[in-house]
Amino acid sequence: MMNQSVPRSYAIFGTGALGGFYGANLQRAGLDVHFLLHTDYDVVRKSGLIIESKDGDFKLPHVNAYQDVRDMPRCDVVIVSLKTTHNHLLPQLLPPVLKKTGVVLVLQNGLGIEEEVAAIVGEQRVMGCVCFLGSNKVGAGHICHLDYGSIMLGEYTANSKPGGITKRMRQITQDFEQAKISMKLTENLLLARWQKLVWNIPFNGLSVVLNATTAEMMANADIRCLAEQLMQEVVAGAKSCDCQISPSFIEKMLTNTAKMKPYKTSMKLDYDAGHQMEIEAIFANPLHVANRAGVNLPKISMLYKQLKFLNERLQKN
Amino acid sequence: MMNQSVPRSYAIFGTGALGGFYGANLQRAGLDVHFLLHTDYDVVRKSGLIIESKDGDFKLPHVNAYQDVRDMPRCDVVIVSLKTTHNHLLPQLLPPVLKKTGVVLVLQNGLGIEEEVAAIVGEQRVMGCVCFLGSNKVGAGHICHLDYGSIMLGEYTANSKPGGITKRMRQITQDFEQAKISMKLTENLLLARWQKLVWNIPFNGLSVVLNATTAEMMANADIRCLAEQLMQEVVAGAKSCDCQISPSFIEKMLTNTAKMKPYKTSMKLDYDAGHQMEIEAIFANPLHVANRAGVNLPKISMLYKQLKFLNERLQKN
Repeated sequence: MMNQSVPRSYAIFGTGALGGFYGANLQRAGLDVHFLLHTDYDVVRKSGLIIESKDGDFKLPHVNAYQDVRDMPRCDVVIVSLKTTHNHLLPQLLPPVLKKTGVVLVLQNGLGIEEEVAAIVGEQRVMGCVCFLGSNKVGAGHICHLDYGSIMLGEYTANSKPGGITKRMRQITQDFEQAKISMKLTENLLLARWQKLVWNIPFNGLSVVLNATTAEMMANADIRCLAEQLMQEVVAGAKSCDCQISPSFIEKMLTNTAKMKPYKTSMKLDYDAGHQMEIEAIFANPLHVANRAGVNLPKISMLYKQLKFLNERLQKN
Repeated sequence: MMNQSVPRSYAIFGTGALGGFYGANLQRAGLDVHFLLHTDYDVVRKSGLIIESKDGDFKLPHVNAYQDVRDMPRCDVVIVSLKTTHNHLLPQLLPPVLKKTGVVLVLQNGLGIEEEVAAIVGEQRVMGCVCFLGSNKVGAGHICHLDYGSIMLGEYTANSKPGGITKRMRQITQDFEQAKISMKLTENLLLARWQKLVWNIPFNGLSVVLNATTAEMMANADIRCLAEQLMQEVVAGAKSCDCQISPSFIEKMLTNTAKMKPYKTSMKLDYDAGHQMEIEAIFANPLHVANRAGVNLPKISMLYKQLKFLNERLQKN
């Protein structure tokens, strides 16, 4: 897809905890990176990005900052790291920035996003990443990286079948490894998305409804049990898409969570900040997919309705 | 059971919004009423009870107030209107106060209470009431009656079969009607308990988890739908006990709730006051009974776990 002789160019849509962190690392490694910003545009254009990281702090005093896609150059790779609640903007944002030979990398959680992007740019030009990153935006252009950081990369396929390992996956991996970001490749992006949901659905959802940290939830026998039951429903949903997740995966997720420091989930951070929660991608789309296959997920459905109520109340306040 | 020549004597265990209201009305009608109190003992002993009611306010400057069952006379009828979270006290409270020929009237919500009382006083001496009363305790010995007030009375049976209409039911009804409290008789107390749960399980539970009034819940399409799904699970639980509740009953409950003024449920009032919620009687016991019959109620089970987590957090604070 891409010219090998010059560094690949990256556009970052959504320069927050995720896109800001990965984009800054790519720029530091010598890649050509262009950041789209909204509220933080003035600060970042003037002062660049500050990354505090467990792997070493660094500053980028100058970055290519934009507040309008029409001012951006066309790029080889467009990284979509907006909140999914802003994905209705993608039909306007993507076409002006994506090179004819370029690809879109979806870094968001949940299901169904790649389909939306494929409808805009064509199904051959979409890849997805599942990110394992603990980072927060603590101020405009100021990101704090606490834990993890690795990425799982896979090809989107319109028929939901495994997409294999492609040449362009290896090219992108090269760039990320150059930026010291660990990247794994998967032949089955859909499976990786469902695996991430095994954690996200119980802990993001319950943390908001119960106003609780991961540690508080894991310390309570009933909520640990409920989290496990929700995870089993996610596994049933995955199975309805021919994605097999073993029971030991659930056990591993629970064990890892019990070992984590008390942690506010990203959905809880959004909720506390008064931002709309990403419940369509993380809850509604998986429910819809399983339902279409005749699989009923009663507890996930209940959690979704509770969160939707809270989202709507946020909007009123 | 009871002597016809003198007014029947009543003991009220739990002189709050419910027991205080009904007991005061019985005393005003000339019955011999004895009130057991705990925190409000000093105030009520000195100043009696104040009832503000939609049917007319009244005061009882002098009532028979006790803080120890050993000081109380033995009574024909002992009304149990404690919070169920204090029912572990009943083995100490009931035996000293109940006449040899007396009966216990359980006015609490939920399932399984009559069984507990029967284990203390014998299964022939237990009756149950389902109360439809909107009242709050607004201060010590001060009760505000907002709406409704009627009672459904039935016999407890150890085999869960309908207990018919008995002579002592008619005697007690006579006393309550004398006190201008509308009392209906049911042959099937267990059915009446399950019918009350059709409302209590969704609205008490969700009002706490979502921090919402009945009006807020009914105005939201998702929560209205979730309430209906929870009601369907209650109906399935009732069916597992051979209690038939028709779909039109659910429809009627929802329609009535939509017409109510914005209303804080009793469980929400308890939670906001930092009191333990009555989730064992209202949630755990129905779940247990249905489960024993092989019926799984996933959404009620999830709501119970959420409430149990919140109850345990209350205890820590």
